[in-house]
Amino acid sequence: MLEESPGTRVDTVLAKLGKALEQGDIDAAVNLFQADCYWRDLVAFTWNLKTMEGQDQIRDMLTTQLAAIKPARLRQDEKEPASAGAGVTEGWFEFETEVARGHGHIRLRNGLIWTLLTTMTELKGHEEPKGLRRPLGAEHGHDPDRKTWKEKREAEAAELGYTTQPYAVIIGGGQGGIALGARLRQLGVPTIIIEKNERPGDSWRKRYKSLCLHDPVWYDHLPYIPFPENWPVFAPKDKIGDWLEMYTRVMELNYWSSTLCKSARYDEATEEWTVIVERNGEEVVLRPKQLVLATGMSGKPNVPKLEGQDIFKGEQQHSSQHPGPDAYRGKKVVVIGSNNSAHDICAALWEGGADVTMVQRSSTHIVRSDTLMEIGLGDLYSERALAAGVTTRKADLIFASLPYRIMHEFQIPLYEKMRERDAKFYADLEKAGFMLDWGADGSGLFMKYLRRGSGYYIDVGACDLVIDGSIKLKSGSDVSHLTEDAVVLKDGTVLPADLVVYATGYGSMNGWAADLISKDVADKVGKVWGLGSDTPKDPGPWEGEQRNMWKPTQQEALWFHGGNLHQSRHYSQYLSLQLKARCEGISTPVYGLQERHHLS
Amino acid sequence: MLEESPGTRVDTVLAKLGKALEQGDIDAAVNLFQADCYWRDLVAFTWNLKTMEGQDQIRDMLTTQLAAIKPARLRQDEKEPASAGAGVTEGWFEFETEVARGHGHIRLRNGLIWTLLTTMTELKGHEEPKGLRRPLGAEHGHDPDRKTWKEKREAEAAELGYTTQPYAVIIGGGQGGIALGARLRQLGVPTIIIEKNERPGDSWRKRYKSLCLHDPVWYDHLPYIPFPENWPVFAPKDKIGDWLEMYTRVMELNYWSSTLCKSARYDEATEEWTVIVERNGEEVVLRPKQLVLATGMSGKPNVPKLEGQDIFKGEQQHSSQHPGPDAYRGKKVVVIGSNNSAHDICAALWEGGADVTMVQRSSTHIVRSDTLMEIGLGDLYSERALAAGVTTRKADLIFASLPYRIMHEFQIPLYEKMRERDAKFYADLEKAGFMLDWGADGSGLFMKYLRRGSGYYIDVGACDLVIDGSIKLKSGSDVSHLTEDAVVLKDGTVLPADLVVYATGYGSMNGWAADLISKDVADKVGKVWGLGSDTPKDPGPWEGEQRNMWKPTQQEALWFHGGNLHQSRHYSQYLSLQLKARCEGISTPVYGLQERHHLS
Repeated sequence: MLEESPGTRVDTVLAKLGKALEQGDIDAAVNLFQADCYWRDLVAFTWNLKTMEGQDQIRDMLTTQLAAIKPARLRQDEKEPASAGAGVTEGWFEFETEVARGHGHIRLRNGLIWTLLTTMTELKGHEEPKGLRRPLGAEHGHDPDRKTWKEKREAEAAELGYTTQPYAVIIGGGQGGIALGARLRQLGVPTIIIEKNERPGDSWRKRYKSLCLHDPVWYDHLPYIPFPENWPVFAPKDKIGDWLEMYTRVMELNYWSSTLCKSARYDEATEEWTVIVERNGEEVVLRPKQLVLATGMSGKPNVPKLEGQDIFKGEQQHSSQHPGPDAYRGKKVVVIGSNNSAHDICAALWEGGADVTMVQRSSTHIVRSDTLMEIGLGDLYSERALAAGVTTRKADLIFASLPYRIMHEFQIPLYEKMRERDAKFYADLEKAGFMLDWGADGSGLFMKYLRRGSGYYIDVGACDLVIDGSIKLKSGSDVSHLTEDAVVLKDGTVLPADLVVYATGYGSMNGWAADLISKDVADKVGKVWGLGSDTPKDPGPWEGEQRNMWKPTQQEALWFHGGNLHQSRHYSQYLSLQLKARCEGISTPVYGLQERHHLS
Repeated sequence: MLEESPGTRVDTVLAKLGKALEQGDIDAAVNLFQADCYWRDLVAFTWNLKTMEGQDQIRDMLTTQLAAIKPARLRQDEKEPASAGAGVTEGWFEFETEVARGHGHIRLRNGLIWTLLTTMTELKGHEEPKGLRRPLGAEHGHDPDRKTWKEKREAEAAELGYTTQPYAVIIGGGQGGIALGARLRQLGVPTIIIEKNERPGDSWRKRYKSLCLHDPVWYDHLPYIPFPENWPVFAPKDKIGDWLEMYTRVMELNYWSSTLCKSARYDEATEEWTVIVERNGEEVVLRPKQLVLATGMSGKPNVPKLEGQDIFKGEQQHSSQHPGPDAYRGKKVVVIGSNNSAHDICAALWEGGADVTMVQRSSTHIVRSDTLMEIGLGDLYSERALAAGVTTRKADLIFASLPYRIMHEFQIPLYEKMRERDAKFYADLEKAGFMLDWGADGSGLFMKYLRRGSGYYIDVGACDLVIDGSIKLKSGSDVSHLTEDAVVLKDGTVLPADLVVYATGYGSMNGWAADLISKDVADKVGKVWGLGSDTPKDPGPWEGEQRNMWKPTQQEALWFHGGNLHQSRHYSQYLSLQLKARCEGISTPVYGLQERHHLS
C-alpha cells in the first residue's frame, strides 16, 4: 500500500475536525488532538488572543464558544501545499465562522493534532476594499452634488473630531499607531491618531543619529505597501521616518501631529471616552468609543534615581534623548547600560571622538547581526525565504503558529548553532570582561524580547570596539552615586564624566495608562507585555500570550498596541478586526479575559 | 508519435537561433524567420528602439550589429511556460550580450519565427541594488569618518548642480521625469530633475478639479513601488499628485521644484550641455552630458488663433488652464473640442450648474470605460490578468511584443466587439448629432494614441449628458470668430459665452526643444511622437516606432521621454539603460538612427 501524502493526512483530520465542530460534538473534536497539544486562536474563536494548552483547555473553550462561533467550511488551503518531516505533518486551511472568514495552520503527529492556529482574516460583509473590491476612484455618471476626492478628504479632515466623532482614538503615531490606523481606515472605522511630534516618523528621526533598524527589511514591512525591492536591509532611522510620513499621507490617515493627549476618562454609563487633547494650542475634546494606547511598547523612559544626580555638573540624558556624538568630541562620556541603545550610542560616540565608558550592570545577550539573519530569521524573513515561497504573510503565520509555551524549544537549537559559529567572538568578549548570557533557558533573543522586551544587543560592530578596548568597559558593578564630575561605582571605581547617558530602558506601557487615564485604571489593567514565563522581568503566572497586548483588557474599551514593525504589522490586523466588529455591533463574546496579576 | 509540446517547439528554434547568432551565421539566423516576420529590439541588439520588418531588414541589422553585440546563452525562460493556440506558439527567453542581459518573447508559425522581441534588462556589472543586491543600510563595523544616511543625502542635495555636476538633466518632473529619475538613481547616474511647479505631482493637481485617470491602476504602476491593492481603479488627480510627491521623496530623487529651465545649449566640442535654470530666484548653470526633455508628450498647449479673441469680453482658457466649474455656476460656457478634456470639463461644468455647449469640429472616437477595461485591457491589465499570472512586467512585454506594423490587426476585432456590445449607446450618440469614428482603419483608441496622441474620449458619464441634451452639442461646424460676448460658428450659429474653453489639444514636444534649445536643434530632430502610419496627424513615411521617443535622436545627447503612466514606466527602463551605458563609457553602436521627415 502506498503511504498517504501529507495533503491527504491533513485532509483526513480537517474533515473530521470540521464535522465535529459543525455538529457541536466537542468530544469528537477534542479527541482529534494528542495529549500534548495547543490551539492558538487569534480572534476567530475566542474574540481574544488565546492559546489553549492541552485537551482540557480546548474542551473548555469549545464548550463556552462553539454555539456562538458556529465554525463551518473548514478545508485545506489549496494554494499552500502540506508538507512533512521529522514525524510532523504541516498544513494550511481556511474556514468560516458565523461572522468571519479565517485562515489556519495545523501540525499533526501520528495522525493527531499537535498544534492548531486559527486566525480571523475578515468579517463577512465588511471585506476590505482591495483587489477585486478596490474603489473605483472616478465616480462615473453625473451628479450635480459631486464632490471630488480632495474636497471629501478635506471636509473629513476638518470635521472629524469637531463636528463628527471618531469611533476610535489612537494615542501615539509611531509605526504601531500608523499600521493600526491604516487598517482601520481600510475597514471604514473613523479614527484619529494623536501624536505629539511635528511629523509622522519623528519618533525615529529624533533618536541618536547613527540609529538604523536592527531588524531586517523582510521582517519590517507595513501593511498594504511593502518596502520596495531596493529598500536597505537595515534602514537608517531618517529613511524609515520619511517612509512613515509618506505612508501616513497616501493611506489618508487622520493623523493629528503636534498634538498632546492631556487626559482620557471612560464613562461606563455612556460607554464613551472623553479624551482631552491640545492641538495647535487649542483644547479639543474627543468622544470615541474605543481608546488605543500605542505609545511605544517600551513605555516611559526609565531613569534610575542616583545620589548626586542633582550636583553633577555635566549633562545627563536618557538614551531616548541622546542626540548622537557631534557635541561630545573629546569629552568623557559614561554610558550606563549594555543593551542595543547602549552599544549603538557608545560606538557612535567613539567614532565621534569621545572618550567613552560602558557600565555593564548585569549580563547581556549578544548575537552578531549576520548570524542572527542567517540562522535566526533566514528561514522566514529573507530573500532566501521569499525564493522558497515564504511570503511575509506566510512567515507571520508560521511564526504565530508556534505556541509560546514551546517556542523556546524551537529557539534553543538555533542559538546553540550561533554560539558555535561565533565561538571565538564570544571568547574575545568574555576576555574583555563582558558578561554574556543566552536568556534564562538559552533560548536567545526573540524569547527575551517576548518575555521582557530587553536584555540584548544585535551586534553591528560595537562589540569589536569593546573587545579591543576602544569602548572602555566596566562590568560587574552597579553605580553607587554621582559626584560633581564623575560616576562612582559600588566597587569604588571613579569614572570622570562630562556626559552621563542612561541607557537603562523603559517602564511598562501601564505607566502611560496611569498618566493619561488614572492610576485606578492602570492598576485594574495591570502589567503590559510579557508571557508570564517566570524568568527575569517576566513574572508568572503563565499567561501564554503577551499580557494586555492587542486584546481586550480588564478596562472596557481600552486597548494596547505596539511592538516592533513585525508585530505592528501582524497584530494590527487582529486588533483592527476586534474594533471593527464592535463598531458594527457584531457580537464579540470574549473567551478567557486575562486576569490581572501585577500592577506594572 | 506524440506531438511536440509548445515548450519543445520553442526550445528547438531558440537552440538554432542561439547557435546561428553565436557563430555569426547570419543566413542560418535569417532562415529561421518566416517571410512575414518582425524583430522588435529594445536596446539589446540595436542600442535603439527598432523594429526590423522582414528578412532583409533583419539581415541588415545582424550584418551591422552582430560582431559588436555578441549574443550568447539564448535559452527558454523556465519560469514562463510556452503556450500555443490558433496556429501560433508563444514563448519567453533569456539571453546575454557582451555587455548586458536580456529578456525576450517569440511567436512561431509552422516552426518559423513570426515575431521576435528582444529587450535589455540590465548591464553586466551595473545591476540594480535590489533583492539579493539591496543595500545594507546600516554600515556595520566602525568608522570614525562615518556619515549617516541623512548627512550623505543632505550633502549630495547641497552639492549636486553646484560643486559637482549631474551626468543627466531631465527637464520636466511629471510622471515621466520621475519614473526615469528613479531608474537613473538606482543605476547610480547622477541626475537632476527640473520642475517649474512647487511640488512633485502639481502637474496633476493643477488640472481641472474633476480629473481622474482614464487609465486603470493595473496599467499605471510606477517602477519599484507599485500602487497598493487598495488603490482606486481610476485615481483622482490629487491622489496621484500625493503619490508622486511621496515617491519622489522615498526614491531620493534630486528634484529641483520651483525651478525654471531658461535655456540649453550643446557644445559639440566638449560634448556637454550648458543648461541655465532659475532656482529660488537665482541663476544656476548646469553642465550635464545628457539632456532629457520630459515636458509632457502632449507638448505645448494648442490655442487656435481666431478673429475676435481680442475683443471677447469674457474669459478664455486653454483646457490645461481650466480650474473646474466652481466659478461658473449660472454662466454660459462654450467648450471648443470633443476629446477627453472637453468631455470631462463639460460634464463638470454641467454638474456645477453652468450652461455648457460643446463645439465638435471633427469626428471623435468614443469608448465606454467599462467596455474598454473589459475588452481592450482586461487580458493584460486587470485583476483577472493578475489572477492568470500576467504581472505588470509580463503585460508590458506582451504589449511590446506586438510589432506596430500589425498591431492594428490585433486591435480591430476588439473594437468591433465593443461597437457591438454598446450598439444602442452609439446609436443614441449619433442621434444626438455626435460625429463618431473608430480610427482611420477601425483600430480604435490605442492606435489613435500611438499614432497621434489624440482624437478620443473614454466615456465615464459625459456621453449620457450629450445624449440627453444636458450638455448642448454643436457639431459639424468649425468656429468662425468671436464677438464681444459670443462664439460664432462658420454655419452662422451664435453661441453666447461668458467663458470659452479651448480643449484643442497640444503641439509636438518638438516645440519645447525649439523654445529651450533652438529652432535649429528642433528642426534637426524633427517631429516627436507618431509611427508614420500615414493616417490623420501621423504623416508617413513609416517609422515603426514612436518618432524620437526614448531613443537616440539626430541631436547627440538629446532625448525625449514621456507618455502615459504605462509608457513612463516601461520605456524609462530602456532610456535609463542607454544613459547608464554612456555614463559608464560602454560602447553603444546605434543601428538605424531615425531620419528626420517632418519639422514639428
